[in-house]
Amino acid sequence: MNSIRRTWLPYLPEDVPSHCEHCADVATFELSLGCPRLGAAVPELRIDPDMGEGYRIFSKDGKVLILGGARGVLYGAYALLEALAAGDAPPEGVQRPFYGMRMLDCWDNPDGSVERGYSGRSLWFEGGGFRWEPRRIRQMGRMLASVGINVLCVNNVNVHPEAEGLIEDAGLPELARFAAALRPFGVRLMVAVSFAQPMRHGIPTADPLDPAVEGWWAGRADAVWRAVPDLAGFLVKADSEHNPGPFTYGRSHAEGANMLARAVAPHGGALVWRAFVYNCAQDWRDAETDRPMAAYQTYAPLDGQFDDNVILQVKHGPFDFQVREPVSPTLLAMPDTRLALELQLAQEYTGHQIDLYAMNPMWRALTGDLPPEKVVAVAAVSNLGRDDNYTGHPFAAVNLYGYGRYAWNPQVDPERAIRRWARLSYALPDGQEEALVQALLNSRAIYEKYTAPLGLCWMVKPGTHYGPDPWGYEFDLWGTYNRADRDAVGIDRTAAGTGYVLQYPPALRKRYESPETCPDALLLFFHRLRYDYVMRDGRTLIQRIYDDHFEGVEAAEAMAEALAGLDLPEPDKTEARERMALQLKNAREWRDVVNTFFRRLSGADDAKGRLIYN
Amino acid sequence: MNSIRRTWLPYLPEDVPSHCEHCADVATFELSLGCPRLGAAVPELRIDPDMGEGYRIFSKDGKVLILGGARGVLYGAYALLEALAAGDAPPEGVQRPFYGMRMLDCWDNPDGSVERGYSGRSLWFEGGGFRWEPRRIRQMGRMLASVGINVLCVNNVNVHPEAEGLIEDAGLPELARFAAALRPFGVRLMVAVSFAQPMRHGIPTADPLDPAVEGWWAGRADAVWRAVPDLAGFLVKADSEHNPGPFTYGRSHAEGANMLARAVAPHGGALVWRAFVYNCAQDWRDAETDRPMAAYQTYAPLDGQFDDNVILQVKHGPFDFQVREPVSPTLLAMPDTRLALELQLAQEYTGHQIDLYAMNPMWRALTGDLPPEKVVAVAAVSNLGRDDNYTGHPFAAVNLYGYGRYAWNPQVDPERAIRRWARLSYALPDGQEEALVQALLNSRAIYEKYTAPLGLCWMVKPGTHYGPDPWGYEFDLWGTYNRADRDAVGIDRTAAGTGYVLQYPPALRKRYESPETCPDALLLFFHRLRYDYVMRDGRTLIQRIYDDHFEGVEAAEAMAEALAGLDLPEPDKTEARERMALQLKNAREWRDVVNTFFRRLSGADDAKGRLIYN
Repeated sequence: MNSIRRTWLPYLPEDVPSHCEHCADVATFELSLGCPRLGAAVPELRIDPDMGEGYRIFSKDGKVLILGGARGVLYGAYALLEALAAGDAPPEGVQRPFYGMRMLDCWDNPDGSVERGYSGRSLWFEGGGFRWEPRRIRQMGRMLASVGINVLCVNNVNVHPEAEGLIEDAGLPELARFAAALRPFGVRLMVAVSFAQPMRHGIPTADPLDPAVEGWWAGRADAVWRAVPDLAGFLVKADSEHNPGPFTYGRSHAEGANMLARAVAPHGGALVWRAFVYNCAQDWRDAETDRPMAAYQTYAPLDGQFDDNVILQVKHGPFDFQVREPVSPTLLAMPDTRLALELQLAQEYTGHQIDLYAMNPMWRALTGDLPPEKVVAVAAVSNLGRDDNYTGHPFAAVNLYGYGRYAWNPQVDPERAIRRWARLSYALPDGQEEALVQALLNSRAIYEKYTAPLGLCWMVKPGTHYGPDPWGYEFDLWGTYNRADRDAVGIDRTAAGTGYVLQYPPALRKRYESPETCPDALLLFFHRLRYDYVMRDGRTLIQRIYDDHFEGVEAAEAMAEALAGLDLPEPDKTEARERMALQLKNAREWRDVVNTFFRRLSGADDAKGRLIYN
Repeated sequence: MNSIRRTWLPYLPEDVPSHCEHCADVATFELSLGCPRLGAAVPELRIDPDMGEGYRIFSKDGKVLILGGARGVLYGAYALLEALAAGDAPPEGVQRPFYGMRMLDCWDNPDGSVERGYSGRSLWFEGGGFRWEPRRIRQMGRMLASVGINVLCVNNVNVHPEAEGLIEDAGLPELARFAAALRPFGVRLMVAVSFAQPMRHGIPTADPLDPAVEGWWAGRADAVWRAVPDLAGFLVKADSEHNPGPFTYGRSHAEGANMLARAVAPHGGALVWRAFVYNCAQDWRDAETDRPMAAYQTYAPLDGQFDDNVILQVKHGPFDFQVREPVSPTLLAMPDTRLALELQLAQEYTGHQIDLYAMNPMWRALTGDLPPEKVVAVAAVSNLGRDDNYTGHPFAAVNLYGYGRYAWNPQVDPERAIRRWARLSYALPDGQEEALVQALLNSRAIYEKYTAPLGLCWMVKPGTHYGPDPWGYEFDLWGTYNRADRDAVGIDRTAAGTGYVLQYPPALRKRYESPETCPDALLLFFHRLRYDYVMRDGRTLIQRIYDDHFEGVEAAEAMAEALAGLDLPEPDKTEARERMALQLKNAREWRDVVNTFFRRLSGADDAKGRLIYN
């Protein structure tokens, strides 16, 4: 009867009942369900409205108490259950999330498709609108709440025409019903809207300075918040990849965002504006335009001009979720703007939830260059879908879990987050847990080695973004070139080149400016180098490329062997084994294509005489 | 009221009435419509059933007579009208087609899409089945009859599941209705069928030696021919690009084809079997397997084993309708098999009916290596669609017209065919007609110069097959590699290489075996050569590649200028101008991408100092 997978919450094997209306109801239910199973007494809940999302777990008179805000008690309940399940002590003292908005951005379309989705179709859309299975949505709500995610943007930032209906009168009852389903889990909805939507309603323009446009949005916001009073806000992708925006009318992005911000402000809504603007019709012959520079050029001059309820959502790197990018300079250049950091759990460029790629180590490294307080919120593109296990690869759930942990506390130790997920999900014997944790901890480094060399980016197959195609994007419109030739590879982004490094503050600029100080992993992101360039460790650039690719496959093979020995439950074991076989195939393909590509160009043999195909 | 475009038949400005049931009815109507308009008396028709498709136009007692078989009188009528319209004398003596089956293969799917269609959606399918506009179908029937095309395969050789319904009981009434619509024009239908179709009907196998399978097909053929007594036959693409076939059951293609041939033989049907078998999951690392060798390897050993009513349909080149290929050796290796030559009017690899590409010169050149009597039939993939002008580019109609002329007489002079089409379609002033004829005559040479260099093939964008992508297919599964590196390019297909040349008879083998005797246009099809290889005219290979690409664009620009001066009627003038602008863009893109690709690899500068991008 109970076929719903419990992911990292196996100790909650029954559904949250539909009559739970408030977070406290859910907290009470979960504790009464989980504590006895975990051999603990059910604690007492006490609500202190002033604590908001915070909570404190403590003992008094031999009894455990959870004190917290309306939502905080729920987070406290999950924290206690998790500690019990993991065999740890619960966190001490008052716990509060570092970021107030911890968003999950779903790229789901009303037709049921998911853009860049690798876990099956949409969990809540089909056939043009909402169509969801309440039990699964409650299980998902529980998963999100258990790691503190508190905003769900339900639809794709590329707003399909049908999705415009979500905020039109006919669509509001369904939106409200869906919002109500997630409300007990402390998850507020957000909706992605199209900047041009007024034009569907008899207004001949979407000019943000046109009073009719402003009036339409104000009226629409009134109606939407009447239906969903706790809606978190609107999300907008404007002037990006063929989406309409203020540029059409000669207006700045501050003018565009602020108009919408004024519409949602009376309702306490946020206006999240995506800073993903670049020329997606670049001529490959044009060596002056450098796509990573685009967001900074568009937004940095607008710092201080955005309304208080605008949040500018910036991808972590200047390109687009590649395996290795430096931090986006835009994130460091707008002290007077409320910024959100955008991550991507959906493994668009990082293995399609076939190849293993655990992200916490990468996010943690990011905090080295981007102090967490530089942004006020975090968002991540969802990796959820209708697959039984929600994330395609059962291990890909580690990224949803780990994202919640990171959003709550960006300083979270990656190893601790990954180990927690592994222990909660599988409770393996010690050695096996260690094998799984180490595999996940190293998974990104392995993936990076057999795919993109040294920060070069974009060697993926166009369209799918899975598998190698070194020149697939080379003569195309996307601004994503490696400009490899028989002597050298890469684009000079120093002051002598495109000048991209000048967008960074002095310390980072200095680090990246010279190949001598630039980290190896980003060498070809910032520099154009000859194949015979001698790196710090004495190897030539070309030899390093070869070595990485051979070693990456060897490491993937070793990882596959280690994971094959785990006593995982079914169907996880089979799912993981099948995907690992595909990952090995993918890894070998990357190794051979990239090595052959560079050998054909450079003519250089492998110093160790390993097989490179002609 | 009359919005149907008349293509090359402007002197027949009224529709053929629906009550015309026989070819003679149509002939009578067309003559009574056209002759007065062309200032001639209406001739007398006389039917001699023994003449079949033949006819004779002659004068007797001051009156013109057309004597011919049941279908021949119709061809005679169109021949007379065409001569009148062109201001020529009608052909003298008895005229008979060289090939008895002159097929047009449509890649139309019941959902209305057309695979590799560049003229809009299907003219007869939509929403899962037949849905056609009788007036347009009759106009199309008239076009086909006017150039002698006598078989129309209605559906895609890649048989979509819905298309299997065409020959099932529920589909037969519609098939019969459509056949009846074309019958007055002397056009018989053919249907592409799926080898595995019996498995849709409770038979657990499609093994051709299984009696249940054989019985199912025999019964099906009975039912189909009861509904369409003059059906021309079945067309099958088996064991090709994921289609099912005899190989699944360890049977030869002769065993597979003969089983179906026995089913259709009692009804006088032909079984057309497509010889397009190759490994479409090749590993690019595998340098032994050479795709052009595949058809010969599969079929040549079967020569003499096919039943009399089997026609083996072989593409003209060993690859797949590339701009330049040598003749398929399979066509020269099967003297005891009835072969059909397959051409492609749909400009899949040759410009998508955007770029000009008139094919008669290419077909005529083919007869130099392939004596016309080596094959018993010709087929061409259709370029027809629902666009007003039927062929996307109004000038692309020249290929449908010219194909009919070629199928009737493969020795037809390409210039004469093209000039006829131009004169009939547009009746331009002399100088302008000459400009149009010269543009079309040279169009393939121009396209070839700015795209594929020297027979290299497959430098197109994967998927669409429009625009350049030199390594788009290089690391893929399709057996289509150029293996370019910093020193050389091409695959050695001589005896010292893959041995492909050994599939040819001695004279061709000798010609292609050495770069000294191999025609320049095929140099890189047969040979792997260094960029500094010195060609017969003293140029290096790399310089020749650069020169061709610069010259190709210059020639396209000159052609565009010449055509811009033509006094074409609208909408042809606008359509042609818009497409020519796109062609120039495409030509420049090809020039720059191919030149840059080879310059990056070779490091060679252009001897004339023209701009090659980095």
